[in-house]
Amino acid sequence: MEKKKYSIGVDFGTLSGRAVLVEIDTGKEIATAVKEYTHGVMDEYLPDGKTKLEPDWALQHPADYLEVLETTIPEVLKQSGVSADDVIGVGIDFTECTMLPIDDKGEPLCFKEELKSNPHSYVKLWKHHAAQDEANRLNQIAVERGEKFLGRYGGKISSEWMIAKIWQILNEAPEIYEAADRFMELADWIVLQLTGQEKRNSCTAGYKAIWHKREGYPSKEFFKALDPRLENVVEEKLNKNIYPLGYKAGEITEKAARLTGLKPGTSVAVGVGDAHAALPGVGITEPGKMLMIMGTSTCHMLLGTEEKIVPGMCGVVEDGMIPGYYGYEAGQSCVGDHFQWFVKNCVPASYTEEAKQKGINIHKLLREKASKLKVGESGLIALDWWNGNRSVLVDADLTGLIIGCTLLTKPEEIYRALIEATAFGTKMIIETFRHSGVPIYELYAAGGIAEKDEFMMQIYADVTNMEIKIAASAQTPALGAAMFGAVAAGKEKGGYNSIVDAAKAMGKVKDRYYKPIPENVAVYERLYREYQKLHDYFGRGENDVMKRLKEIKKEITKVKENLS
Amino acid sequence: MEKKKYSIGVDFGTLSGRAVLVEIDTGKEIATAVKEYTHGVMDEYLPDGKTKLEPDWALQHPADYLEVLETTIPEVLKQSGVSADDVIGVGIDFTECTMLPIDDKGEPLCFKEELKSNPHSYVKLWKHHAAQDEANRLNQIAVERGEKFLGRYGGKISSEWMIAKIWQILNEAPEIYEAADRFMELADWIVLQLTGQEKRNSCTAGYKAIWHKREGYPSKEFFKALDPRLENVVEEKLNKNIYPLGYKAGEITEKAARLTGLKPGTSVAVGVGDAHAALPGVGITEPGKMLMIMGTSTCHMLLGTEEKIVPGMCGVVEDGMIPGYYGYEAGQSCVGDHFQWFVKNCVPASYTEEAKQKGINIHKLLREKASKLKVGESGLIALDWWNGNRSVLVDADLTGLIIGCTLLTKPEEIYRALIEATAFGTKMIIETFRHSGVPIYELYAAGGIAEKDEFMMQIYADVTNMEIKIAASAQTPALGAAMFGAVAAGKEKGGYNSIVDAAKAMGKVKDRYYKPIPENVAVYERLYREYQKLHDYFGRGENDVMKRLKEIKKEITKVKENLS
Repeated sequence: MEKKKYSIGVDFGTLSGRAVLVEIDTGKEIATAVKEYTHGVMDEYLPDGKTKLEPDWALQHPADYLEVLETTIPEVLKQSGVSADDVIGVGIDFTECTMLPIDDKGEPLCFKEELKSNPHSYVKLWKHHAAQDEANRLNQIAVERGEKFLGRYGGKISSEWMIAKIWQILNEAPEIYEAADRFMELADWIVLQLTGQEKRNSCTAGYKAIWHKREGYPSKEFFKALDPRLENVVEEKLNKNIYPLGYKAGEITEKAARLTGLKPGTSVAVGVGDAHAALPGVGITEPGKMLMIMGTSTCHMLLGTEEKIVPGMCGVVEDGMIPGYYGYEAGQSCVGDHFQWFVKNCVPASYTEEAKQKGINIHKLLREKASKLKVGESGLIALDWWNGNRSVLVDADLTGLIIGCTLLTKPEEIYRALIEATAFGTKMIIETFRHSGVPIYELYAAGGIAEKDEFMMQIYADVTNMEIKIAASAQTPALGAAMFGAVAAGKEKGGYNSIVDAAKAMGKVKDRYYKPIPENVAVYERLYREYQKLHDYFGRGENDVMKRLKEIKKEITKVKENLS
Repeated sequence: MEKKKYSIGVDFGTLSGRAVLVEIDTGKEIATAVKEYTHGVMDEYLPDGKTKLEPDWALQHPADYLEVLETTIPEVLKQSGVSADDVIGVGIDFTECTMLPIDDKGEPLCFKEELKSNPHSYVKLWKHHAAQDEANRLNQIAVERGEKFLGRYGGKISSEWMIAKIWQILNEAPEIYEAADRFMELADWIVLQLTGQEKRNSCTAGYKAIWHKREGYPSKEFFKALDPRLENVVEEKLNKNIYPLGYKAGEITEKAARLTGLKPGTSVAVGVGDAHAALPGVGITEPGKMLMIMGTSTCHMLLGTEEKIVPGMCGVVEDGMIPGYYGYEAGQSCVGDHFQWFVKNCVPASYTEEAKQKGINIHKLLREKASKLKVGESGLIALDWWNGNRSVLVDADLTGLIIGCTLLTKPEEIYRALIEATAFGTKMIIETFRHSGVPIYELYAAGGIAEKDEFMMQIYADVTNMEIKIAASAQTPALGAAMFGAVAAGKEKGGYNSIVDAAKAMGKVKDRYYKPIPENVAVYERLYREYQKLHDYFGRGENDVMKRLKEIKKEITKVKENLS
């Protein structure tokens, strides 16, 4: 019998990084190690404790990522007893767009003594929101110029993405812009640390930097229209050579081997965005199967065979998820967050007390109560826009609504209505894809909610009238990254020749899945029609009350601040 | 110096009756005595403890009212040290429509041994809601026949009112209908007990029994269309002689003198509905001044010089409040109730704890927090329909809505939005009167909320952009009743010749009143436009989602009940 081979996926999240060591022939996860970032998310001060950051900033320290590599990889080797000789591939997934400026040797500018007090020399985390002015201006100019790329991003480029972040640096710290040899996605920078090779991946380039396989980046004219100094930003500060996922970026260098305990020469795949890595992790490598990653927010991913313009999607990128397909992404900005808000603000003391007496947490108590309600019994319906609408309307200024309250309305009824609202939001996204010519036949779910919340998942099955399969792994992105690592190694070395083959063997869902209950489906169809009508009325301009209320709120808050 | 004269007002509420002894020249309240009803509200069993009542029933025992007379009047005489010789007038106000069947001697049928086990022989309290089927049928037939009277009642006759209640008795207990010589409003029945005279008052006849000063009761044809047995209900079971408020019904009889300690011959005014008695209590005897009685719900009252059809008002009655004027009534069905619901269902444990630590009640804590918010700062707006809409839309199937929620929305912001919603509801009523040709220049408020809740009253002043005067008396209806007693006595005996004169001397508001704050008014005008748009969209048929949700809820609840 041949000796087992292994691959390691390293998943860099918002607060920590984790390595997962995976058996290549089965996808079985043998060992896991987690390292919290030493500096966490820096949103008040730089590491010097003196340099204060503006509101909406979110930075990280690149040294923290190296610590992750240095501690978690040796740790999984040790835990599992697997020899580094049998680890044939490594894959990296990272939050996106998380970016940093580097010098011509790949060293972060924040490592330099003379620049380390400049906030712009650090890593801008995905949720750094201080480039909103730049994003607004970018979108305005793109609309004015009729830039075709807008359609591929639901009509709007986010302030979280690469170009807005680079422009902010140019505006606020031209010396950093000047000093930067390159701006890199962290997924790629980690690969650079491991292999000495800068190999830009198609996923984050496509979803976060407006790159298109056939058309490349936006034109020089567009960048010039943004700011004359940006005219040559692509040539000067980005990398135009883009590689599809699963491509072998290079091999572990001597230096990286010393850092990680891996063998020099071990294959490393190009990086991948963390959400996107999950797709093969549940075994999806073909069109028609939508994966929902459900946590504080939900990310929807789907493959298609053609490039279609779907209203309000987050992005469509050729080779963005699985080489050879168009990867479609959509999202809901308020899912788990919604229920957290409710529990913090709207649950009466009597319920808190009841949960305490029963020795269960308040979410469980609410779910217990809510699960006794029949579909439609509460008479409530909500719009899930507590944090705006990411897809289909792409409008951060929309707000939440609940309708149908009476003097007998109970907290668990509102709780259930909020859950249902997020399910209706997902159904709206599914329907929008279908109407735009991107078929969806099956639903998959991963993430904390998918794993733990049976009540909610059944509602999703009933609302969408689709079966929902659940990821077998609790760390699907890391598993997906490890699979790309196995592909980078290739079949000859004991890996796979394609992600399709890898996914067949290694991607997994649980045996138990959710089936729609016909009597619930029937009622939800009626409720969904109401949701749709409200969605369109408040979301498509018939009554812009939400925006006007926000406008008033903004004015008032400004006056209040000026007074104080 | 002439000796002071006094009048007594007796106010019969839902749970108790109270007598107030008032100085006639100043309106000063000298003494008050309260008696809780021995049988309270009977909504489960008859006094025998065996005869079970159906859902939605609410009965009372007429003996309880006699106990009120017997204990509270002697008590105020004793407390005050005023001699019965100096009490020149008595006035009675009562909840309405609160009705009972009597024999030809005025004795309640429930006093009879052979009938006392029949629920229909007792007093049907105003909130007895078991005649809904009859009310629905009545409205349907009235619409089919194009009955003009509907317009005077906002297009809908309530199940709480006289005709529906009588019809229920006929349908469910024809033997009681048969045995009844008359059906009486309790306001009139008390006057009958005191004076031996049956003098039906124009207020409850008009607002609750579809009586019109010029057109009388509905036609025989109408009653026949309801039920052939009702054809002659007016002649057979009601009283066609109607007397305006302040009219002297008669004098205290020997028997009543023994019961109450008053002198035989003391003048007694015809009865009056409790809400309507409040109008002169705050000194209103002329058009253009709207009084809001604010408690669990709000009742709006207003005088006009012409009969106008105002969409969705509760009723317009000539001589209904002040003789010589048209009395207009409107209402909001969910005011104090709204905040009770919120506090019970939506306030988190952390707030309950904070209130406890501060030693204040939770409403006070919420008001403290909410009062720190600037108008418009929360970005929220609500429709105050948690208990349907009584005026302007007259639609019990409408439900509550809140819009503008975000992940940062706080409980006090929702609380404030609910208060504002009720204020917008009042503004909508005011505007509707104005547009219908019934002018309103001034606002007055009475009741628990008006007296205690400065925060809320300021919001009402800001939303309506009107000054609001507050009743000086905590028992305005009893004061108003006493004033009608003084008018019944007449000037010669030391009283007044008209309620206008009485109100000038005796009606009172507090020195301190609420003035609109211009900067708040400006923002509320913008918010009100949003309220109006939502009000019309959801309330006038553009999107009947609330009704459809209620329909679904009804179906589901029925299925659930059948299963269990």
